[in-house]
Amino acid sequence: MSDSVVPPPAQPPVKLETPQQFREFIDQFDTFLFDCDGVLWSGSQQIPHVGEVLNYLRDLGKSLIFVTNNSTASRQSYVPKFEKLGLSVDPSEVFPSSYSAACYISTVLQIPTGSKLFVIGESGITSELTDLGYIVLGGDNEEDRRAWHDEEYDAIVPDGDVKAVVVGLDRHINYAKLARGYHHLQVPGCHFIATNTDATYPSSRKLFPGAGSILAPLELMVGRKAVSCGKPHPAMMDAIEGVRGVDRARTCMVGDRLDTDVKFGVDSGLGGTLAVLTGVVKEEEIVSGRFGVWSKYYAESLGELIKAKQQ
Amino acid sequence: MSDSVVPPPAQPPVKLETPQQFREFIDQFDTFLFDCDGVLWSGSQQIPHVGEVLNYLRDLGKSLIFVTNNSTASRQSYVPKFEKLGLSVDPSEVFPSSYSAACYISTVLQIPTGSKLFVIGESGITSELTDLGYIVLGGDNEEDRRAWHDEEYDAIVPDGDVKAVVVGLDRHINYAKLARGYHHLQVPGCHFIATNTDATYPSSRKLFPGAGSILAPLELMVGRKAVSCGKPHPAMMDAIEGVRGVDRARTCMVGDRLDTDVKFGVDSGLGGTLAVLTGVVKEEEIVSGRFGVWSKYYAESLGELIKAKQQ
Repeated sequence: MSDSVVPPPAQPPVKLETPQQFREFIDQFDTFLFDCDGVLWSGSQQIPHVGEVLNYLRDLGKSLIFVTNNSTASRQSYVPKFEKLGLSVDPSEVFPSSYSAACYISTVLQIPTGSKLFVIGESGITSELTDLGYIVLGGDNEEDRRAWHDEEYDAIVPDGDVKAVVVGLDRHINYAKLARGYHHLQVPGCHFIATNTDATYPSSRKLFPGAGSILAPLELMVGRKAVSCGKPHPAMMDAIEGVRGVDRARTCMVGDRLDTDVKFGVDSGLGGTLAVLTGVVKEEEIVSGRFGVWSKYYAESLGELIKAKQQ
Repeated sequence: MSDSVVPPPAQPPVKLETPQQFREFIDQFDTFLFDCDGVLWSGSQQIPHVGEVLNYLRDLGKSLIFVTNNSTASRQSYVPKFEKLGLSVDPSEVFPSSYSAACYISTVLQIPTGSKLFVIGESGITSELTDLGYIVLGGDNEEDRRAWHDEEYDAIVPDGDVKAVVVGLDRHINYAKLARGYHHLQVPGCHFIATNTDATYPSSRKLFPGAGSILAPLELMVGRKAVSCGKPHPAMMDAIEGVRGVDRARTCMVGDRLDTDVKFGVDSGLGGTLAVLTGVVKEEEIVSGRFGVWSKYYAESLGELIKAKQQ
């Protein structure tokens, strides 16, 4: 990621404003991927008209997928959050990075169910992997959260049956988990998977260590990068495609960040990207292609799409 | 660190073999810095004649300093290790990275004693800082080692009185320590200090996460590098100079690694470097300047210096 100069695309980002523009935009796509915070809601408030827009798109037969880098939750545990904000959602429409990692392991890497996986992470990733039939070592197991005595570390040895080390945000990270992850990664062929690489994690209007910060020691020790299954990495799109069979040319990513959401759409070869101004990105950053990332479209808000219903 | 081509120095590394060569080598220096493992001992065995060589150098009035990146021990706690291997040593001759960080904070940064420092590390760094009169938060405090409940993290706030965050190897690392370190580093002017940046830490013939791996999440989150007070970083030499007042032109670093020991001597502007073949580095790496690092001298073993006594 850098601010180095990237030439603008032949067609600069188009601002959608009229009912006609919104109708033509919607007609191009069968599937819409949505970032959540800053797109559907801001803090604890639904962004105006978003609920109507989502229902309108569903009525038109569009597929909706809500993609989030949060790995601490599973699909099922995300539903109450939507409902609290007045948004109806089906668990099958939610695609957190915990599920993305599980799908990538299952459908892209095709690691057989019943295999052992070593997890550094919380209940979201543990439950998604267990639901798919994997044997999870580590994860949110209470025994693995306790403080170890110094003399116990020497007993750590690689387990040749561990097919992947899977790393997400773990607020119970400890030295033993890092050491065990490192030793398992010494086994030839052991895959190295991350739910996402965000350095920080927002909570209660403050920042805390994110999945990328839990991952950093392991990447440093083993001298290689994990495959990240979160935005902006295209492996997340491979995972979505593996379970949902989308047509990328007729799929649009909607987000409030150029460096994660829009970059994810561009790098995944999607037919479209829509940046909205209800979150992080500012209009001047969109038109100047900040981070060298150019969205195809932008709009004031996802709620504006309701204009498409006007005659 | 890379293997990119660096031109050899005008004078390639000189292999010391004859009594005359060893005498001329010794005469050039007043102070010798020694790496320990692979130079003084290998595993649990003293390298032959090393005890005699150290006593011979002391008899000649040379200053000896044993520099190690191990931050878990203090100077005092290192003495029994030397004695067990049949080597006499004075605590004032030992310079672990824990003490290096403490000296750097005290004599280079001149942070006043009585100031608060937040420590991620073990008893070595905690005791060295406490001995100098600092108030240590975190460190090897038992209370800071316990597992936290999720709801406790929200109470973490920056402390404006914390003058530095000091990071070393901590086998009781947890999420709260990382989050607290990150929040304290948001205070303008808060220094960011590491004992050393080794990714791994050897123990019981296996590798475990090192100080650099404990440091990696914080560096990622704050987007800047800590000042490292261990080899190969010259801040360690600044710390040594601050408390020992050495003449760099008449100081020689002796080590078994080009990428840490010899690089440390070269980058610190020392008058000489001596690589020995009793540890990691091989003769062909010395003569080819592996890592783009060239030692001034090399010898089969530190024990060979005893030849200087022959007439």
